[in-house]
Amino acid sequence: MDSATWSLAFDLLGVFFFAVSGCLLAVQKGFDILGSLLLGSLTGIGGGVIRDLILGRFPNSFAEPIYLAPPALAALVVYFLVPAVQKARRTLLTFDAAGLALFCITGTVTALSYKVNPVSAALLGTVTAIGGGLLRDTVANVRPGLFDRHDLYAVPAMLGAGAVAALWTLGLYSTAAGFVVAVVVFAVRILALKFRWSVPLAASSRHQAERHAAD
Amino acid sequence: MDSATWSLAFDLLGVFFFAVSGCLLAVQKGFDILGSLLLGSLTGIGGGVIRDLILGRFPNSFAEPIYLAPPALAALVVYFLVPAVQKARRTLLTFDAAGLALFCITGTVTALSYKVNPVSAALLGTVTAIGGGLLRDTVANVRPGLFDRHDLYAVPAMLGAGAVAALWTLGLYSTAAGFVVAVVVFAVRILALKFRWSVPLAASSRHQAERHAAD
Amino acid sequence: MDSATWSLAFDLLGVFFFAVSGCLLAVQKGFDILGSLLLGSLTGIGGGVIRDLILGRFPNSFAEPIYLAPPALAALVVYFLVPAVQKARRTLLTFDAAGLALFCITGTVTALSYKVNPVSAALLGTVTAIGGGLLRDTVANVRPGLFDRHDLYAVPAMLGAGAVAALWTLGLYSTAAGFVVAVVVFAVRILALKFRWSVPLAASSRHQAERHAAD
Repeated sequence: MDSATWSLAFDLLGVFFFAVSGCLLAVQKGFDILGSLLLGSLTGIGGGVIRDLILGRFPNSFAEPIYLAPPALAALVVYFLVPAVQKARRTLLTFDAAGLALFCITGTVTALSYKVNPVSAALLGTVTAIGGGLLRDTVANVRPGLFDRHDLYAVPAMLGAGAVAALWTLGLYSTAAGFVVAVVVFAVRILALKFRWSVPLAASSRHQAERHAAD
Repeated sequence: MDSATWSLAFDLLGVFFFAVSGCLLAVQKGFDILGSLLLGSLTGIGGGVIRDLILGRFPNSFAEPIYLAPPALAALVVYFLVPAVQKARRTLLTFDAAGLALFCITGTVTALSYKVNPVSAALLGTVTAIGGGLLRDTVANVRPGLFDRHDLYAVPAMLGAGAVAALWTLGLYSTAAGFVVAVVVFAVRILALKFRWSVPLAASSRHQAERHAAD
Repeated sequence: MDSATWSLAFDLLGVFFFAVSGCLLAVQKGFDILGSLLLGSLTGIGGGVIRDLILGRFPNSFAEPIYLAPPALAALVVYFLVPAVQKARRTLLTFDAAGLALFCITGTVTALSYKVNPVSAALLGTVTAIGGGLLRDTVANVRPGLFDRHDLYAVPAMLGAGAVAALWTLGLYSTAAGFVVAVVVFAVRILALKFRWSVPLAASSRHQAERHAAD
């Protein structure tokens, strides 16, 4: 496969992973299968649509009907394989992490191939990666995972997007390099979840004592 | 009237119906009249703005100030005619259904006239139809009606958008045909509400017993 | 400084003020510093991105990496200067008011310089001014301040945007005039907050008695 085909494959796989996370949230919220398909679609293609709107191009998820397949598949897979009593947020977060890892790569590469400067391209890659999950959580009326304490969400996506932009600028980017970065981003995100890696709260730690005292 | 005039009339009528649904939600949430105007405007023009952004054109609701009239009229109508104690979700849903029926037609036709392929055009028509209500419910912090069980919301819009795209491709589309499709979509949506038509939940029915047992 | 430089300065200052309001909400919601940076960024650049997408131009916050500075500064300022126990909604609303005042000017001027008609330009200026705060509140899952009773939120922004569009059309707009309008908008918003100015509820006052009786 050439690099454009690989890029499409990565993108469709990312759409599928994010769509599964959306369908799993639909199960948790008691939505019907159509709500599952819609929430999965929004989650899967949302980040890419935001990226494409910012880049000023017709979103490829609307231009190419093949993008309808992963959310449809995700809704069916979740429907037939997931028990309705399944509440495991862990499964949702694992699929979300896989989507995040792929989209920070494909989002950045798409922006770079549109001649966007590397800093803005990394920013757009990050927006692509976190956009779908943010839409999913906002629309389904749950606290966005993006803002959860005790696990790094945006950091691995930012690092992955930055790494791709740097490799590209240095002329070192290849599909294989992109794949390696995606694997690292996924691993960092999963480890952050498992070991509850965190960054400081929004207000300085010198005030944490007061906060905890007040709780 | 020629077909462009009819199309504008349908679109403005759809904006009005959706705007009324937004203003009625504003009453239920205790917003003031300006919040009602803003929520009505967002609901009325939101779906079309999303469609136009995806099509890459300057949104017609911003290009043509006439689009400000239906939300203003809706806010006044709701202000003077609706008791503050009115909580009837039924009225809101009826206006929402009328907007849905018109927008799945006008959204699809707009996309088709921009030379979008029929599948993507039907998808964009569906997005136009469900976008405004989704924005309304998300912004007002209520569970999107789109995800309610026991009534089909997106299905009639998808069918209507698909019918328009099919008729157009076959060279059979006319304003009259569009009107008939809109009436059918409206009827299906209202019947779905009345008789609580539903599709399966997001997880397979073989698990429903467990779910109900767990409730 | 020439008018383009002033315009950029106003815009960056508006981004900073809105970003601070986002970071303060992050403190209140117990987000970590990265969540604070992300919510601050969304609030700061959100309104401008919506405006630029509607105008069909590459959003300047993505085109010019200098736009990353104000949200980063805001997250640091809030981190080091704000106690975690700080819940003062008043501080948040003051920064929000400053952003609102600047953005209704810069948003309208940007639209006018893109040859948009004055009515649509004033509308886009209003959308720019209220968009960031609406995204902030929607994403953080709090009732949008836009819909609070007892204080005018959108009215000062609409008046400011309308004044700029009128001055521009009459050939009387200057950076100094824009600054004066921004100060007036800020003052009106702060006075509205202080004295709880309000407009009627979404349903007519003839029904208020029933409502209050029902409460």
